[in-house]
Amino acid sequence: MRRIEVFDTTLRDGAQGEGISFSLRDKLALTEVLDELGVAFIEAGNPGSNPKDLGFFREVKKLRLRNASLCAFGSTRKKNAAARDDTNLQSILAAETPVAVIFGKSSRLHVKNVLKASLEENLAMIEESVAFLREAGREVIYDAEHFFDGWKEDAAYALQTLRAAAGAGAGRLVLCDTNGGSFPGEIEKGVTAALNSIRSGNGAMTAPVFGIHAHNDMGLAAACSLAALEAGAVHVQGTLTGAGERCGNTCLSALIPSLELKLNARCLPAGNLARITELTRKAAEISNITLAGGLPYIGASAFAHKAGMHADAIIKTSVSFEHIDPSLVGNGRHFLISEMGGRSAIAERLRHLFPGITKDDPVIARLSRRLKELEAEGWQFEGADASFEILARKLAGNHESFFSILTYRVASEYHAGTAALPSPAENAGHAPSLLRYPANAWVKVLAGAECEIAAAEGDGPVNALDQALRRALARFFPLLQEVRLDDYKVRVIDSNSDTAAKVRVLIESTDGRAAWTTVGVSTDVIDASRQALVDSIEYKLFMAARAENERNAD
Amino acid sequence: MRRIEVFDTTLRDGAQGEGISFSLRDKLALTEVLDELGVAFIEAGNPGSNPKDLGFFREVKKLRLRNASLCAFGSTRKKNAAARDDTNLQSILAAETPVAVIFGKSSRLHVKNVLKASLEENLAMIEESVAFLREAGREVIYDAEHFFDGWKEDAAYALQTLRAAAGAGAGRLVLCDTNGGSFPGEIEKGVTAALNSIRSGNGAMTAPVFGIHAHNDMGLAAACSLAALEAGAVHVQGTLTGAGERCGNTCLSALIPSLELKLNARCLPAGNLARITELTRKAAEISNITLAGGLPYIGASAFAHKAGMHADAIIKTSVSFEHIDPSLVGNGRHFLISEMGGRSAIAERLRHLFPGITKDDPVIARLSRRLKELEAEGWQFEGADASFEILARKLAGNHESFFSILTYRVASEYHAGTAALPSPAENAGHAPSLLRYPANAWVKVLAGAECEIAAAEGDGPVNALDQALRRALARFFPLLQEVRLDDYKVRVIDSNSDTAAKVRVLIESTDGRAAWTTVGVSTDVIDASRQALVDSIEYKLFMAARAENERNAD
Repeated sequence: MRRIEVFDTTLRDGAQGEGISFSLRDKLALTEVLDELGVAFIEAGNPGSNPKDLGFFREVKKLRLRNASLCAFGSTRKKNAAARDDTNLQSILAAETPVAVIFGKSSRLHVKNVLKASLEENLAMIEESVAFLREAGREVIYDAEHFFDGWKEDAAYALQTLRAAAGAGAGRLVLCDTNGGSFPGEIEKGVTAALNSIRSGNGAMTAPVFGIHAHNDMGLAAACSLAALEAGAVHVQGTLTGAGERCGNTCLSALIPSLELKLNARCLPAGNLARITELTRKAAEISNITLAGGLPYIGASAFAHKAGMHADAIIKTSVSFEHIDPSLVGNGRHFLISEMGGRSAIAERLRHLFPGITKDDPVIARLSRRLKELEAEGWQFEGADASFEILARKLAGNHESFFSILTYRVASEYHAGTAALPSPAENAGHAPSLLRYPANAWVKVLAGAECEIAAAEGDGPVNALDQALRRALARFFPLLQEVRLDDYKVRVIDSNSDTAAKVRVLIESTDGRAAWTTVGVSTDVIDASRQALVDSIEYKLFMAARAENERNAD
Repeated sequence: MRRIEVFDTTLRDGAQGEGISFSLRDKLALTEVLDELGVAFIEAGNPGSNPKDLGFFREVKKLRLRNASLCAFGSTRKKNAAARDDTNLQSILAAETPVAVIFGKSSRLHVKNVLKASLEENLAMIEESVAFLREAGREVIYDAEHFFDGWKEDAAYALQTLRAAAGAGAGRLVLCDTNGGSFPGEIEKGVTAALNSIRSGNGAMTAPVFGIHAHNDMGLAAACSLAALEAGAVHVQGTLTGAGERCGNTCLSALIPSLELKLNARCLPAGNLARITELTRKAAEISNITLAGGLPYIGASAFAHKAGMHADAIIKTSVSFEHIDPSLVGNGRHFLISEMGGRSAIAERLRHLFPGITKDDPVIARLSRRLKELEAEGWQFEGADASFEILARKLAGNHESFFSILTYRVASEYHAGTAALPSPAENAGHAPSLLRYPANAWVKVLAGAECEIAAAEGDGPVNALDQALRRALARFFPLLQEVRLDDYKVRVIDSNSDTAAKVRVLIESTDGRAAWTTVGVSTDVIDASRQALVDSIEYKLFMAARAENERNAD
């Protein structure tokens, strides 16, 4: 079994994708997801060009990573200057990661037209930058930017840049198809040439490892990566979801299963492949990107069968229309027309609530019908287990609400300026700054035979409602004090109907031990939030009551 | 220059994709788009398994196609029966298309386990079905289903099935990787074996043309298609947008440009490649699917540049970060404004507002600093050109606000039940249904020396604010009547700080001619919406004032 090093650059190259913008917390959460999956390297940012990244590198030290080595990324030193004076190289060291990734130019065109330096100076920049980082104790990965273009242009010079990096101690040479314009056959030839050139050279004591960094501008990133690995590379760069500049990087969640399941390679710690669907979807959630249903292996439609013939054949013999068993990657088969798949899946999901329930139970039929109606209205229960369970319990006739909201009123107020209004003359050219008053809410609840009313201010109307609701319920259910909201997401479902569009709100709650997610849908973001908040509290109270019953039964 | 036949199956295999459902009108509209692009064949449906398709085949005859031949699709005859009695083959004839596509089994496994027929009977089914359609005057394309799996299993038998089809007069033999589980190297070997087998055989007078039908289950459909074409196939099947069962078919809009621009092949009528972006997006619109921004060649992000270094290099020499000139496929380059983007990108983007501005202008430096601060607070101007321009004009000291909001108040109210409150006993087990009252807002604005106040109800608080603001401004700016909101998006930026998290609102507006996007950020979704709404209106008024000035200058 061949060992392949997986290098994820979601936090660096992925962050260059259109529409992607990571907060510091997103970056920490993504680091944990990637480490949990078990990639070998996480390229976590470019501290030289993005000062915010240094804050991340300070914070990330508090995480205990089990599998991945963190990398800081930057360019070679500036031309005609000393490496030790280079602020960019200093930023890489300041990140205090075990691994430094630096990129340099392989292409004459780029050296002359973009860098505007001599070919010799470029070699010195590569060599001295690698040496500087090595002397500071860093493992060095050298990214040969535009390697394949440079190699097609002037093979001898491109190979010379690699030897400069290897000679100075870079442990890994990564050949980049930066523009994504090379075919797999060209990649294979370029990697072979690079391997032969370094092996026959007399540079480094230990031969460096070769890697590939491909882009998907022709839809060939996976094929190019496979071609490089076949030619002798053992290190592959990409992003778990395929996010990245322009058309994205090699999509690792599409590549790793092919390598592990079909090419006798090991990319992740044993057993982790079965978590790749779950963790890639989690990475997409954190990144706030929608994964295409047809994403290989991990997409929601990757094992969906619509044609009657296919579904029929699958039931006869699953290999007939599936190239792998979906459970190997933690995904599931589903049939789009036949309800059979649907009901089995629902029964499976409810077994812990209703032990022994089968797909032929009438509750399952009712639930299946109701789910279809709700999904047509924009509901989605995939990520909202707690709301799904409450719905199932209601349809089974065994959910007792602990409380209800009788009335609420939420208001947001805004007043321009602070004191008197500016005269129109004073106002010329500048709008008065808006001074925002906090949003406020009052809520009246009914619990058992008693009512309670409470008011609160908040940071925005949803927060005000949340605070007021908790205050009103506090004297009935003191245990709600330990519940806090962990995550709050809003998605516009039908984005074409302007500000009256429907929104779906997902709320993740925790009591420090368990975490659960609830959902609400409405044209009014406050109403959708109300639904998810009520479900969240109901779920906590139900869990507590069940635990109490179990204790009493003992 | 090599000629490649493009065969589009959007209407047949594409229709099997999850979430796709074509009306008869959609199918006619797609046929026109595909013909306009200039594909050679359009596979338009399976009249045997989908009787609705026969209605389409009647209607489609009224269209005058200039480039494409229509194909009806179906399976070989039923086992142990005569071809002339087969209702499926009769349906294919009833479609009255010049071309018939029939698929048969190449794999022993499928013949035995799915078809449950003898190997000899399967050969007879293929031969007699092809012969029947040929006798009825149809051109026949034979789809060898699961060819590569069958060939790996039992090469001799798989090749025998091809000879049966060729011997009976099929003009095209299409090798299908039905499950999408084959690697490009396997495809190349399989195609080569098939070619050699048929050429050395003594079947048909004219050697048939070979085709490839690949699926994207490993993200390798484009690479597999290229491998087959390299091995000697000249016919390629796929769907323009990549839609199709499971992970989709070969995405033709990603493949055709590679073939035409880089491999000296001709796929479309001369001049049509430059329309592929427009027509693929139109096909996606008709199909009601959202194209991924990163789709090769034709995606909205395919030539988007975010990293400052990249943008800077592109301006120096465009080949540095683009593998082709985007105008060749009718797409365009654009620079994303972000903290990673450098001053060159900002200057480039502002040139139409401030002609002749360079990256060394002090306004650019101020703007770059301000962008970094705002992005740290969660703002993002990538998709919000209009807000970006207003910000730039403000920082340059030449933006005059047309109006300002002095005060507003937005309220949402909810009351449980309809009449009297339910008694606690009645309430046992069920929360009273919530009857939602519409949200309401009032707004006071200042325009010039005058104030105006207006109120409105709405579907949710943001919609209410939007309506009230438009009413208040109506008498000052009647031209706002023509502005409507086209799209409304909400993103929670830092989703880990519960309901007090910051949200970013993006609003797309249109006046029927131009479209523009604005952004707002706040912990309060209403406040964020207010910012984006105000920018949207300011932008419209500014555009109108500029147009007026230009008219006066003439």
